[in-house]
Amino acid sequence: MTDFNERLPNYQDIELAYSLIKSYINKTPVLTSESIDKILGCIVFLKCENFQKVGAFKYRGATNSVLQLTNEGAKRGVATHSSGNHAAALALAAKKRGIPAYIVMPENAPSIKKKAVAGYGGIITFCTPTQQAREETLAQIQKETGATFIHPYNNFDVICGQGTASLELMNEINSIDIVIAPVGGGGLLSGTATYIKGKFPNVKVYGVEPQNADDAFRSVRDKTIYPSVNPKTIADGLLTSLCPLTYTIISQECDRIITVSEDSIINAMRMIWERMKIIIEPSSAVPIAAIMDNPDDFKGKRVGVIISGGNVDLDNLPWIKR
Amino acid sequence: MTDFNERLPNYQDIELAYSLIKSYINKTPVLTSESIDKILGCIVFLKCENFQKVGAFKYRGATNSVLQLTNEGAKRGVATHSSGNHAAALALAAKKRGIPAYIVMPENAPSIKKKAVAGYGGIITFCTPTQQAREETLAQIQKETGATFIHPYNNFDVICGQGTASLELMNEINSIDIVIAPVGGGGLLSGTATYIKGKFPNVKVYGVEPQNADDAFRSVRDKTIYPSVNPKTIADGLLTSLCPLTYTIISQECDRIITVSEDSIINAMRMIWERMKIIIEPSSAVPIAAIMDNPDDFKGKRVGVIISGGNVDLDNLPWIKR
Repeated sequence: MTDFNERLPNYQDIELAYSLIKSYINKTPVLTSESIDKILGCIVFLKCENFQKVGAFKYRGATNSVLQLTNEGAKRGVATHSSGNHAAALALAAKKRGIPAYIVMPENAPSIKKKAVAGYGGIITFCTPTQQAREETLAQIQKETGATFIHPYNNFDVICGQGTASLELMNEINSIDIVIAPVGGGGLLSGTATYIKGKFPNVKVYGVEPQNADDAFRSVRDKTIYPSVNPKTIADGLLTSLCPLTYTIISQECDRIITVSEDSIINAMRMIWERMKIIIEPSSAVPIAAIMDNPDDFKGKRVGVIISGGNVDLDNLPWIKR
Repeated sequence: MTDFNERLPNYQDIELAYSLIKSYINKTPVLTSESIDKILGCIVFLKCENFQKVGAFKYRGATNSVLQLTNEGAKRGVATHSSGNHAAALALAAKKRGIPAYIVMPENAPSIKKKAVAGYGGIITFCTPTQQAREETLAQIQKETGATFIHPYNNFDVICGQGTASLELMNEINSIDIVIAPVGGGGLLSGTATYIKGKFPNVKVYGVEPQNADDAFRSVRDKTIYPSVNPKTIADGLLTSLCPLTYTIISQECDRIITVSEDSIINAMRMIWERMKIIIEPSSAVPIAAIMDNPDDFKGKRVGVIISGGNVDLDNLPWIKR
């Protein structure tokens, strides 16, 4: 593994990551829709990571981080604390290399998420649901096993893996004007910006987050990392705050961060489901909402949108009041 | 238009239809899923007509029927009575040729369906919701306009159009053992069976319908066309009964008709949504349910599944109790 303290990743790192992971990941389709283009007033190319393994882009970064380990290091396994897609992705990536993945989860995590991680072969240790307990439990596991900690986004190799979605997008589609991606912890946006700005400096890169979780917007504006404090948004993949690595990359490379309302997110999500017949999670609707809300900024442009994932609780759809 | 009373369609008619329509339709993807294959115990290839224009395979048949008209006949337009996908498909196909489409709809049709047909440029005439009123209103319109009646499935050209989904499937995927499709009025299954059995006689063709709307199963078994009497199924695309043309083709060409329970349909639909992140309508889940319910009959086989469409009321999902 490259130590991220030495330097920031560049687009060649992402090309290298791609050569490593490409036979392990799904080459996801880029979908278009005449009716969506008409509604949005621009030409959108959806890079559909909802069709990625584990249902999310996270599998790219997890796979790269696992494959970058030396044989010696890999044997001891990988570890993380997460209750979301990263944990499932890391568990599956580790399983494919035949190494253990130790996952620390809060004991009150939804049973559907526990089941997913266990289903991919993750070795789960439950802890009390506090940050301190998570970190202590993880440290204990690392001490006992020698496993390598793979942070969900404050990690060079994870960011390089996430950037490969943009690489595939740009390999397939010519003359993109803008690439737009959601921002939570910033791993996806950092990988996207690193690749695009490094290889196609004239293409704009925008990040989008919910107004109700606008810590990245404020952090970049005020040049300090704000924590994400108890955010209330349906975009459950975007609850986390930036970390030193993603803050640095996003501050340097991103042209703009846009924020959108909860109503816009729900409308955008439903529109994509209805018109395109694909299931995208609320976090993936966030960039679509940004286009809907700012039509003049996208008018007539060719816009690449990274659709981050499709993991949705089908019993709780945001437009169904119960 | 070829008069279907003269002869039954054959696979060359479907090849001809394809050459006519292919630049007007979406070449829909064939999707696969390791996790679905593991669950079903066979290798499934989903021909995704949920990504077809108008969200359903119906656009193939409608387009072929419109393009088969002479210039003289086309000028006077097309007409049908339908409140479903066929009406929307015919309206859009006619619009693309620049000719009128007269659609007779019952005045109590859901407003979402009225809006869809109107949105595609269909000229709607409302009638009281009886079969007699529909037929009389249609006859009156034909008399006034000279429009050609395009039946949703008792029509040679419509059936040939529907068969082009199987043509694309077989062009893309090698060594299919079984092709399976839902059966309502039988247009899709007739086109499927005509193409597959004509060109690949060793491939099995199965139709599937809900137990609660099993008129096709009984009709073929008892060698008589049973009407579909007030069927209660969530597979709202499969409420109609066979017609002389589809009954004849299906009786001659289909290897088997399977029936499935409502619970199986809902389980299959939800499984595809969750695992594959695509939106399929209940009628499209019917063949998947047949595989789930009859694992021994499909074990290890390569199975092509025609996914008929993705038009779902997102406010009323069958697994959400309200």
